[in-house]
Amino acid sequence: MAQRPSIPKGTRDFGAVEMARRNYIFHTIREVYELYGFRQIETPAMENLSTLMGKYGEEGDKLLFKILNSGDFRAKTSADDYAAKSPAALASAFCEKGLRYDLTVPFARFVVQHRDELQMPFKRYQIQPVWRADRPQKGRYREFYQCDADIVGSDSLLNEVELMQIVDEVFSRFGIRVAIKINNRKILSGIAELIGAADKITDITVAIDKLDKIGLDKVNEELRAVGLTDEAIDKLQPIISLSGTNAEKLAVMRNALSASDKGMKGLDEVDFVMRHLEAAHLTNTLELDLTLARGLNYYTGCIFEVKALDVEIGSITGGGRYDNLTGIFGLPGLSGVGISFGADRIYDVLNRLDLYPPTTRQGARLLFLNFGAAEAAHCLSLAVATRRAGIATEVYPDAVKMKKQMAYANAHAVPYVALVGETEMAEQRISLKNMATGEQTSLSLDELIATVKH
Amino acid sequence: MAQRPSIPKGTRDFGAVEMARRNYIFHTIREVYELYGFRQIETPAMENLSTLMGKYGEEGDKLLFKILNSGDFRAKTSADDYAAKSPAALASAFCEKGLRYDLTVPFARFVVQHRDELQMPFKRYQIQPVWRADRPQKGRYREFYQCDADIVGSDSLLNEVELMQIVDEVFSRFGIRVAIKINNRKILSGIAELIGAADKITDITVAIDKLDKIGLDKVNEELRAVGLTDEAIDKLQPIISLSGTNAEKLAVMRNALSASDKGMKGLDEVDFVMRHLEAAHLTNTLELDLTLARGLNYYTGCIFEVKALDVEIGSITGGGRYDNLTGIFGLPGLSGVGISFGADRIYDVLNRLDLYPPTTRQGARLLFLNFGAAEAAHCLSLAVATRRAGIATEVYPDAVKMKKQMAYANAHAVPYVALVGETEMAEQRISLKNMATGEQTSLSLDELIATVKH
Repeated sequence: MAQRPSIPKGTRDFGAVEMARRNYIFHTIREVYELYGFRQIETPAMENLSTLMGKYGEEGDKLLFKILNSGDFRAKTSADDYAAKSPAALASAFCEKGLRYDLTVPFARFVVQHRDELQMPFKRYQIQPVWRADRPQKGRYREFYQCDADIVGSDSLLNEVELMQIVDEVFSRFGIRVAIKINNRKILSGIAELIGAADKITDITVAIDKLDKIGLDKVNEELRAVGLTDEAIDKLQPIISLSGTNAEKLAVMRNALSASDKGMKGLDEVDFVMRHLEAAHLTNTLELDLTLARGLNYYTGCIFEVKALDVEIGSITGGGRYDNLTGIFGLPGLSGVGISFGADRIYDVLNRLDLYPPTTRQGARLLFLNFGAAEAAHCLSLAVATRRAGIATEVYPDAVKMKKQMAYANAHAVPYVALVGETEMAEQRISLKNMATGEQTSLSLDELIATVKH
Repeated sequence: MAQRPSIPKGTRDFGAVEMARRNYIFHTIREVYELYGFRQIETPAMENLSTLMGKYGEEGDKLLFKILNSGDFRAKTSADDYAAKSPAALASAFCEKGLRYDLTVPFARFVVQHRDELQMPFKRYQIQPVWRADRPQKGRYREFYQCDADIVGSDSLLNEVELMQIVDEVFSRFGIRVAIKINNRKILSGIAELIGAADKITDITVAIDKLDKIGLDKVNEELRAVGLTDEAIDKLQPIISLSGTNAEKLAVMRNALSASDKGMKGLDEVDFVMRHLEAAHLTNTLELDLTLARGLNYYTGCIFEVKALDVEIGSITGGGRYDNLTGIFGLPGLSGVGISFGADRIYDVLNRLDLYPPTTRQGARLLFLNFGAAEAAHCLSLAVATRRAGIATEVYPDAVKMKKQMAYANAHAVPYVALVGETEMAEQRISLKNMATGEQTSLSLDELIATVKH
């Protein structure tokens, strides 16, 4: 026999049970998005490389999957050029298109391209796969889904408030206990101003972002390596190690940043979001976390991140406010704010906590066993009635051994099996077996429908 | 301003209304698939080129989108090789992966790869995009969705029966009147035997397939060009031009093909499917159509195709029985049967007949207008209650002019707009405007929920 076929490394097949679980995740998220008036859009898997290149840093450019031009892709590249050029330059000559790397850049492209048709504020959600040529490893894939929601064209902090409500609602529905962490880039800028290192804000946030992972000493080492003075690092200590309630933290910070307009504005913004969330009675806790920085440097205002409380797994959702995302495509001055649920990590958390509803294991609700040609034909017409009643129904297609048919029912966790032999046919009855209890009862079609629908 | 960004030719963005319509199509199809016990799977967008190449003919190989290997893709190709090799050979050297071209080959690959985990018969559906480097033209895209269902591991014709029920149910739900055409490759083989041209079966079916498009004379011309004798072509005439009811056609054909075991078997199969469908009381007509051949030569038994009766658009659904699809991956002897709904053409038909439910235009059901900071904060807590009641609700985020807020409500076809000013806040009332009638009433929160949910 030929070698068993396989799929590219870092990609996955999803079988029936995995797929039902993933659909449960996507469905829950989209239901909540729609409850808040977000509407779905989709963009093509392939974007022009001119749209994608330069948007994710030098490393990101390398991680883009590029698609070979069709036809004679090498027509414009001589053998001399081939020998002389770098792989990156050759790739640009051979490829015009690439697979999308995230949903944010295609969304920005979409907004600019279709701006004449869009009614602002524009609230969209998008659930689609993205592709990255990362080295595959446990929990990191080359194809994975993102579930983003963004509002552009509104500066209002009410958008931040609603996004936090969405996050809380989604994880409540999943039954996952989380901590929602919030911070604001303006607070971080204020801190940089305070210590006289406004040009080092990116370096500082990157270092602070590592506090959880590497500890305070190493963070300070990094800050020193970045060029901060000992005095500046000293000034940072109480801020990095800040503790207490959100109100206490805000009070300390208002004091510390009173000289920085920007810093105070960031604190006001966080305060506004927190106060407005009181009326929403969130299930999960919201926590001001000054060590939260998030890597992406297009964020300019509030930023947030979600951590699961009962599983060690890193951030499972994140987002923030950006003031100029569409500027890269020639439409400046459009502010937006968004969140992104990490479907793959949520999948892992739900698996580890065993929180999936039992229906994600099931195929059909009712299976008619097949005792031969005449019985099967009879069952086919019974199935017309059960399906009309909305019951997902199968008729086993082949008159094979009972054992094989029952194995099929078990493999698909079918809750009810119907047995219709000669006797049942003659009496217009159906023997119904409840697969959970093993109980078997003789029913009319109407009784069966009532029982199986329960 | 920079040039407006764009997307690759042959690809599409889907905005909110288009997306709601597409979701309506996908949702309807998947609901019916699940009603029949089919379970969803997904396969990666990228497959190894070794899986895809050679499966769609020479032309198909050219239409595969190939993905440039990451890193130094040219490491193994010298400048001399580059100059000497054909574009196709170079593409093979530079690329290991390609985008899937259809859902059938990845499905066959899936079945063979996971055969140890699968319980036969295996019933799966799959709704995913596919990519083809076709020349883009009206109605033909480089990225489009397929919606397939297949059963493998069962020879039973009950599977064909259920697939026809599914087709009928899906189009009934859409409100599209269709003709379901059925034929059988064995009947076509029988015909080829009858006229002594068994080796020309593919040529004959291709020619017969064109009857609708080019007419009888040109079909006969093609048959002659293919090398059929005048005598053979004469024998074919009554069969190509066969008419009457299905029963009449079957009777004539049983007579004509009595000498061909294969042909008679094909007629028996069609007869079985038709007889078993009587109890299902299909909404649409099922028609034995001997000119139906379908291009794909992996079909071996029943084949079917669906045409819309009220729109001129070609086949909108098709499928058939194949006896050896997994053989190409080293697992012979596994019979299967499947159908594929053409989502893009169904989208066009629904558009032309204006059959979409009105909800596909709508965003949220309720919009709270924003009259200022205090009012908006109050509306935010009212929205907590309406959302808890399951009502998709928005609070307009900015306190801008009424006119702009109402334009937003209209653009999203929001059916109810809530106005809460100082007076309403003080009185704990809400002014609710029905956007269809223009009527405005003052309600309590409970009354509003009851009205908007209706």
